[in-house]
This record gives sequence, structure tokens and C-alpha cells, in this order.
Amino acid sequence: MLKEGERIDTLGGAVQVIQSNDVFAFSLDAVLLAAFAQVKPTSRVVDLAAGNGAVGLFLAPRTTGQVTLIELQPRLADMAQRSVALNGFSDHVDVLTMDLANAAQAVAKDSVDIVTCNPPYFKVNDASVKNPNPYLAIARHELTTNFETVAKTAASLLKYQGKAFFVHRPDRLEELLATLAAAGLAPKRLRFVYPKAGREANMVLIETIKAGRPGGLRILPPLVVYGSDGQYLEEVRRLLYG
Amino acid sequence: MLKEGERIDTLGGAVQVIQSNDVFAFSLDAVLLAAFAQVKPTSRVVDLAAGNGAVGLFLAPRTTGQVTLIELQPRLADMAQRSVALNGFSDHVDVLTMDLANAAQAVAKDSVDIVTCNPPYFKVNDASVKNPNPYLAIARHELTTNFETVAKTAASLLKYQGKAFFVHRPDRLEELLATLAAAGLAPKRLRFVYPKAGREANMVLIETIKAGRPGGLRILPPLVVYGSDGQYLEEVRRLLYG
Repeated sequence: MLKEGERIDTLGGAVQVIQSNDVFAFSLDAVLLAAFAQVKPTSRVVDLAAGNGAVGLFLAPRTTGQVTLIELQPRLADMAQRSVALNGFSDHVDVLTMDLANAAQAVAKDSVDIVTCNPPYFKVNDASVKNPNPYLAIARHELTTNFETVAKTAASLLKYQGKAFFVHRPDRLEELLATLAAAGLAPKRLRFVYPKAGREANMVLIETIKAGRPGGLRILPPLVVYGSDGQYLEEVRRLLYG
Repeated sequence: MLKEGERIDTLGGAVQVIQSNDVFAFSLDAVLLAAFAQVKPTSRVVDLAAGNGAVGLFLAPRTTGQVTLIELQPRLADMAQRSVALNGFSDHVDVLTMDLANAAQAVAKDSVDIVTCNPPYFKVNDASVKNPNPYLAIARHELTTNFETVAKTAASLLKYQGKAFFVHRPDRLEELLATLAAAGLAPKRLRFVYPKAGREANMVLIETIKAGRPGGLRILPPLVVYGSDGQYLEEVRRLLYG
């Protein structure tokens, strides 16, 4: 089942995820996004830019609805597909190897309850050096998609009043909110993630509603990842280890 | 010096502020805004919607530059004027009784280093009941001004790369960021204020730069006001009591 360099990590004490340091291993961002997403027992879910499937795999046990993972890179989609089988989720989880911009060719518009996405964080015009690993470069930099496309795709798939959940970088917050508004996704809740107490936020979790009314944004309590001893704090430890 | 119903409160162990429960008493918001504003030793400062002058009075000892308080309501501007004299700040602090929309008639455009504003928080079309006290109604509801006017006025007074600092309600964050961008003020730092650990934010402090480049927004560590014992936490206690 495993290819060279791959391993299986267990998350939340339950879900098994095929990973590889050479190709792709999910990060805390995916775990926090999955925990933040409000999935109901029969929700129809689509995860965009699914990578090795971590977000969708974490969500799968929480719904009997179909969970569709959309990932552009065949090598990553293949890892996700094998993890789906490994966990016995094949009855209600499918993996589509395609550009998320074309998602509406495979998933009916206005049919989805919940969209999740942990997109590439970095603009290509950033001075930042691209990752020499092409799998990671595409996962982290807006080489093959961008947030505008992500937001438009999420909005097109969602039912009226369906919800999209994102994790992103707070240094782009102003642009993210403007892009979401332009796509017809109204931000409803934000939660900022801080690496440690006294440090600036390095992640933001965003909940939006399709065709929601503007205003009334809620800023949830801060989520702090590490204690002063360098160990995960309780909330994060519980998500990672169950 | 005091009129009926007025009292003098001391803040930060240093500045004296004339207050009145019948007319206007500053809140923690003003104290946090003044502490958040980055005033240099010779900064030229304008505080818009100054109320009884709390923000400007707290800033006055930190600069030898002129500090101008602009307040529409004569009764409040009069309190501020008397507090200026009471603290011996008359050499470099002035109070203008006027609509902030007309500020450029009294203060030269493109001449100010720092603008601060603790504006009315509530839209007039909110279902919220207006305060029956007319002084407080004008201070809290957008009856005589609104955030768009505040942002445009701040931008017009500021020098190139001058900074404006605001305190506002996070439920309007999306609109605030869009309005600031439209006025030519680029948000650079946000700090969310939470009443207690585990509660949602009820204030946001916003730092902007005139003609700043978009992007690169920093989310500062959360500021929590009260401990679980209902007492002010250290950072706030220090601001209030010195």
C-alpha cells in the first residue's frame, strides 16, 4: 500500500494518513481547519486543494454525506485515494484529480453544504523563494491557482447559505476579506492562531456563508498553539492525538 | 472649575480628566487607543471625535508637537478644554468645537503625523435603541458622522506616510478595512481586545498608514481585559492606574 518514502501517521487518535516528507505531509493548518469546519451529520462536503487528503479524511467520520477531495497533483491525489481506502471511507469519500477551477464539471453547482480549503498561501510575485520540491512549491505558492479562484469555486459549488471554511495567512487578511465579498461569500467568524502567547498571529481561520448578509463578523477567542515550554497546549494536543 | 455633576478622574497615575455620568465619561476604549497610538516626541497629533478629550489628554505628555482635539458637541468640548487647562497642557493642546468633516478648515491638509479616533460605533440603521441621553447618543451612534467621513478626514489631514489609529467594533471589521482602503489608509497592525479569556473580541485597535502599501497586515497578540476573578489583568491595570 505504501510507496517508497511514505509512512502512515495517525491523527486525532483515529484517522490514518499516508504521508511522505519527499512529497507532502500535512501540517497543523489542515488539522485546525478540519476542527474549525462545522460539518453536520449528513453534510455534502468538498475539500479544494486537498493535498494528501488530510482535511477531508478528518471530516469524513463526521458526515454520512459524500466527501469529495479535489487535488490537481496526481501524486498527492494518489496518496489521498489510498488513505481513503486505508480508513474504509471509500463508501462516501472520493478523490478527483483535477484543477479546482474546473470543479463544477464534476460536482453540481449549488449542491454542496460545506467547502473547505487550505490553499497555497504565498503570492507568486512574493520575493519569497519557491520551494525546490515541486510538490510543495505548488501546494504553498499560488502557481496553479489563487485565492480569487478558490473563493469563486467555493461559492459556485455551495448551496444558498452553504458554508465555506478557509485557513490562510493573516498578513493577507484585508485582501482575503475583499476577495470573499466579491465572490459572494460573507465572512461570519474569524479565529486567529498564535504560535505562542505574546507572539503575532501566523494563521487565520475563516468561516463564510454564501449570500450571507454583510456585517456581524465574530472574532473567536485566540487559539495559541505552543506553551512557554514549547509543548502543544491542550486544545491542539487533543486535536492531534485525540 | 467643575460644573454640576462633574468629577475629576486620574488616569495612568498622571492625567486628570473632567468627567460626568450625566454627559460623558470616557471608557476603556479611549485608554487602549491612546496606548496603542505610536506618538513620537515631536509628533503633530489630531484626535477626531474627541469627546471629553481623554485620548488627546493621554497623548499630550508624549509629544511637544501640537495636539488638536476636534469635538462637535460644545458641552463635551468645554469639558475637554477645562481638562487641558487643569493639566497645564494649554501650551500645546487646543480644542476645536466643530464637525470633524470640516477639520481641514482649521488644520492644514497633509500636515499631521498622527490622527487618532474613537468614533461612534453603531450604525444609525441598526435596530439598536439610541441612548436617551443625547450626548451619549451622538458619541455612540453614527448620527452626526460615520466611519467613511472619519477615514477620509484622517487621510486628508495626515502627511504622506502619517499614521491613523482607530478603535472600533470587530463586527464591522470587513467594512472598516474596505472603507480605510478606499480612503487611502493601509491597515498595518490590528490588535483584538477580548473581555475575558475564552470570549469573543469586543474591540479592535487598528493602525493604518497613509499611502501605505497593501498587504503585510500584522495581527498583534490578543489583549485580554479581565481575569477570571473579574479584576483587570496586568496590562490594562497598568494603563489605568500607572
